Amino acid sequence: MSIALIIPDRKLDDLQQRLQQALPDTRIEIWPELDDPADVEFAVVWKQPHGCLSGLINLKAIQCFGAGVDSILTDPTLPDLPVSRIVDPALTEAMVGYLDGIVSYYRLQLDVFTRQQQQSLWRPKSPRKLTSITVLGLGELGGAVANHFDKAGYQVAGWARSGKSLANIRCFAGEEQLQHAVAAADVIICLLPLTPATEQRLNQAFFQALKPGAIFINVARGAIVDDSALLTALQDGPLAAACLDVFCQEPLPKDSPFWQHPAVLITPHVSAVTNVSTVVAQIVENYQRALRGSGLLNPVDTIRGY
Amino acid sequence: MSIALIIPDRKLDDLQQRLQQALPDTRIEIWPELDDPADVEFAVVWKQPHGCLSGLINLKAIQCFGAGVDSILTDPTLPDLPVSRIVDPALTEAMVGYLDGIVSYYRLQLDVFTRQQQQSLWRPKSPRKLTSITVLGLGELGGAVANHFDKAGYQVAGWARSGKSLANIRCFAGEEQLQHAVAAADVIICLLPLTPATEQRLNQAFFQALKPGAIFINVARGAIVDDSALLTALQDGPLAAACLDVFCQEPLPKDSPFWQHPAVLITPHVSAVTNVSTVVAQIVENYQRALRGSGLLNPVDTIRGY
Repeated sequence: MSIALIIPDRKLDDLQQRLQQALPDTRIEIWPELDDPADVEFAVVWKQPHGCLSGLINLKAIQCFGAGVDSILTDPTLPDLPVSRIVDPALTEAMVGYLDGIVSYYRLQLDVFTRQQQQSLWRPKSPRKLTSITVLGLGELGGAVANHFDKAGYQVAGWARSGKSLANIRCFAGEEQLQHAVAAADVIICLLPLTPATEQRLNQAFFQALKPGAIFINVARGAIVDDSALLTALQDGPLAAACLDVFCQEPLPKDSPFWQHPAVLITPHVSAVTNVSTVVAQIVENYQRALRGSGLLNPVDTIRGY
Repeated sequence: MSIALIIPDRKLDDLQQRLQQALPDTRIEIWPELDDPADVEFAVVWKQPHGCLSGLINLKAIQCFGAGVDSILTDPTLPDLPVSRIVDPALTEAMVGYLDGIVSYYRLQLDVFTRQQQQSLWRPKSPRKLTSITVLGLGELGGAVANHFDKAGYQVAGWARSGKSLANIRCFAGEEQLQHAVAAADVIICLLPLTPATEQRLNQAFFQALKPGAIFINVARGAIVDDSALLTALQDGPLAAACLDVFCQEPLPKDSPFWQHPAVLITPHVSAVTNVSTVVAQIVENYQRALRGSGLLNPVDTIRGY
């Protein structure tokens, strides 16, 4: 019996050691160094090379090593098995903390003052009046973020493909309501899942529906956004600024126009990173559920894509 | 009977108009255009040219147009009259909001990511672990700031020249305890009043007592800090970064080494700006108290200097 960690390009010693401590009788193997692929009953997966799961003939379940499963589901050879994802309260807290700090950054005009500092320019300004925030995507993270800003005194609206209901949050649903949901927002936060339906969904029509001076924050996936529509909205309006934590290609290529764009703040995909110490327990629990054939914690609907 | 507004280099139409509405029978005059200096019974003052108050022979009280009275008290010809200052809840709220945003900025490593962005450099980092904050100065603003960060979950210490007591805040007092108060702090916030005792008080010995990697924030007055000691602490340690909102000379001169310093964030004295609409009521109240000879709201001890 073995668990395979299929997480390329990442140091996995710590995760392996913690899982081994929790499951002393199970082999914890790091792909591609597998003793016998037929022994693998459970796989912890992140951005796997397509095809690598199909040889694991006794695999019972797939655990995504994060909240967003898009990089797993795009594998055309993905076995038809239960898939679960990490829902980590520490991850939610980190995301809320990141977004709270980014909204403060814009409220205090730190983007403007940083640019002025580069030019040795002393030009005081009052804080930006940011009163309304729209959150796109009302899943675990989006719901928590909407509630946070509601409690902090903002007028919060939310949008999701399917209808959601959250106290004090004006919830919009469905394709035709997306532009209504963002029309009055000072700040738009993208927390949508990346699915065939959301890929390139934030396009020119979307950005042109925003309020003049609006600020766009993407902490979901780069491919949800049409980059050229975003650049146009920054150059010709209505957007005043964008904070981008995620990109179609990561690391962001050196020649991307975002790097030196004066109205763009780039953070290198740090808004919420899976924390090993808090996710080990979820992996162990799902492994044990998979062995006894019961439903997984935090299951993913592989048809909807989240 | 008249009130003189002695606030050079600032547009005062709005303040004059609001005071006139509240006090229709009193002349509201803008210095130096005074009908008859002997008519002036009350002066609202900010950075007055020295000597300009001594000709107002019937002046009963002086109202500082802000929270910090240092620029008023340094006038050697200041008449021996009651002085009051503005204590504005909106000002306190603005200061707390500013500092909360600045601490988040450093927690999220936005200083590091901004520098990396200038070099098109993708290098993820976890948030800085900022757990302890020391507030220097525990007056109206310092006390509110200490309470805010305590409620937000930080370990907060405070220091003031005279002993103060605040719930949950470890309070240090007196010259000899200043270095103890800051020794363990990840973030040091300066909210001291500028007095002869605090001028250049944050000197080399002070900065060398800080923890390696500490972050220094000055939102009080520039002259409290020995700038060359601060620059040394940024260059050779222990300071990792400084956020400066106030400077000995404002606007900050073009040739200041702070402008292009990679570890310094400059904001142009915006942390908390007196809001006309909320201070008019305090000026009116103090004017009426001065006329009937009763004690002023928010009196200043002109010997201690705050």
